[in-house]
Amino acid sequence: MSLPATIEYVNGKVILLDQTRLPLEKVFLEIPDAQTMWEAIKVLRVRGAPAIGGAAAFGLWLGVRKIGDAATRSEFLEQLQTVRDYLATSRPTAVNLFWALDRVNTAAKNSNLQTAGELKALVLEEALAIQREDVEMCRAIGEHGANELEQILPAGSSILTHCNAGALATMGLGTALAPVYVALERGRAIHVFADETRPLLQGARITAWELHEAGVPVTLITDNMAATVMRGPSINSSDGLKVGAVIVGTDRVAANGDFANKIGTYGVALLARAHGIPFYVAAPSSTIDLNTPNGEEIEIELRDREEVTSFGARVTAPEGIQVFNPAFDVTPGNLVTGFITERGVIRAPYLETLAGF
Amino acid sequence: MSLPATIEYVNGKVILLDQTRLPLEKVFLEIPDAQTMWEAIKVLRVRGAPAIGGAAAFGLWLGVRKIGDAATRSEFLEQLQTVRDYLATSRPTAVNLFWALDRVNTAAKNSNLQTAGELKALVLEEALAIQREDVEMCRAIGEHGANELEQILPAGSSILTHCNAGALATMGLGTALAPVYVALERGRAIHVFADETRPLLQGARITAWELHEAGVPVTLITDNMAATVMRGPSINSSDGLKVGAVIVGTDRVAANGDFANKIGTYGVALLARAHGIPFYVAAPSSTIDLNTPNGEEIEIELRDREEVTSFGARVTAPEGIQVFNPAFDVTPGNLVTGFITERGVIRAPYLETLAGF
Repeated sequence: MSLPATIEYVNGKVILLDQTRLPLEKVFLEIPDAQTMWEAIKVLRVRGAPAIGGAAAFGLWLGVRKIGDAATRSEFLEQLQTVRDYLATSRPTAVNLFWALDRVNTAAKNSNLQTAGELKALVLEEALAIQREDVEMCRAIGEHGANELEQILPAGSSILTHCNAGALATMGLGTALAPVYVALERGRAIHVFADETRPLLQGARITAWELHEAGVPVTLITDNMAATVMRGPSINSSDGLKVGAVIVGTDRVAANGDFANKIGTYGVALLARAHGIPFYVAAPSSTIDLNTPNGEEIEIELRDREEVTSFGARVTAPEGIQVFNPAFDVTPGNLVTGFITERGVIRAPYLETLAGF
Repeated sequence: MSLPATIEYVNGKVILLDQTRLPLEKVFLEIPDAQTMWEAIKVLRVRGAPAIGGAAAFGLWLGVRKIGDAATRSEFLEQLQTVRDYLATSRPTAVNLFWALDRVNTAAKNSNLQTAGELKALVLEEALAIQREDVEMCRAIGEHGANELEQILPAGSSILTHCNAGALATMGLGTALAPVYVALERGRAIHVFADETRPLLQGARITAWELHEAGVPVTLITDNMAATVMRGPSINSSDGLKVGAVIVGTDRVAANGDFANKIGTYGVALLARAHGIPFYVAAPSSTIDLNTPNGEEIEIELRDREEVTSFGARVTAPEGIQVFNPAFDVTPGNLVTGFITERGVIRAPYLETLAGF
């Protein structure tokens, strides 16, 4: 399996896979300073909550690493705070960005270290710890998910996924795709149908690319073909593959199991239910938000109309046409077979099982 | 209402709306000869089964109109057959193309007319009759459909449609959209959600354009937003409109009510069922094919991978990725609330009602 790392720290250098060049080119950039990392986060060279968190943490280190080793603690902490506030403006709606920045900043403040040299080392260690924990979290989701698939996925059947909750959204094996990668390591190549995921085509550009790169058999479909591939080869389908399970990621899980994810997820969940196909959500347990009682409380971002009315430079819809472009939708918990987390699979009744997790 | 005609015969001229220029420009072309009509059909300046049939019929007339009035019957019929065979190569999978060509050709052959002058007039009259009948058929579908909507569509709710079975696919008011246009004439402006309909975006380019042009309130959505707008404003939808009915077109209806239509239709039907939303298919009764017992017998065309992997000149998926690109899907008759035809609405049980229609 040859999955490229989204972020790597090698011999004092921070290396980033430039995801804006995908799927056409695999370009790695050395990020020399916090300004370059700010730009990389801003223009989505790195995306996906866990990967953005890691990028921000390494960005903090890049912003303080040139401070002389002999500088004082207070000089260092002042500069660290400045870089933290600066990086926080790169993508102000990304919760994980703030979480990672504050974790590193707080670790430095709470330490008793007195010299800039020691504090720099601490900052780097904290960024590496965030990365290591993400790798472990993805791995654990992958192991639990692969175990589940061994139980429920009929031989010769496929997974269907929507959007990208793969390795390229994290620093490890991803969330929704981690079970597929672990299954591959165990010797089972599971074929994946990747929804292209309009309007921004993360499925075509990123999911299809990373699965193909890793050697996982993948078929790209438009979102509106999901129902047909779920029905399988019995009617009018020439490819002979039936969907045996759906796995998607999530941005937030409410206390009753309702969850938010990329627009289109709710429809996929209904189609899976209509065909009797198990539907899983793979995510770190940190996305479970018991303070959100249900999906009604999750606010949905509406995005620019141009994402729907044009494609690159090409206008594809009439001028002035009204557009509805929600970035996410909310899927009711009663459509979820299980939440695959790093600590195991959580099953209904979610009001009880999520609270007790 | 200002719907442009797809094809018009005015003062000896055949005028075509160039649909390849939509949605950016409304360009009308005068078609001077059969060669130009052949090219127009080939490159989809005119599309949709009824409109293609009409274009072919007028193309026949264009191909014989310069024959001298005094030419003999046999000279005329020979040339007519040559033009017929030539036009038949423009889009060889379009059943309605052959139907229209053969209807005109046979009318000439079966007549007792002896001079080219009389036969030319007959050919033109037959083309105009095909057009007139299509206009009447669309109108009748629209009236029956509008009556149905008056019964079942709650005030303030929307229609959802997929692909384009509108005026621009016919020479009249369309099929799936005809009920909306007739309702508008009757004073009720029904808001329409138009699925963009990947991969070729007929919904964005054509349906949204013609509805907007006609003064029908329309909102363009990506295909994967259909489930969210069907759920309506109760959860996380900011636009306050709920889908009260779905209307789509069809290419063929089997004896049991299974029907073929643009890829994505089956998913829309399942989502409508999940939300308790009535789902209608609007089409001329000529699309009912009692020789096809059920949907399993309908062969589905698989189209080029490039339709999914690129967009205009822009490549959006990894090189060499596998793609599944069926042009159509088959929806089971048990998901259909009714077939709206020019002779009324047909309801289940379809094995009986379609056979007796």
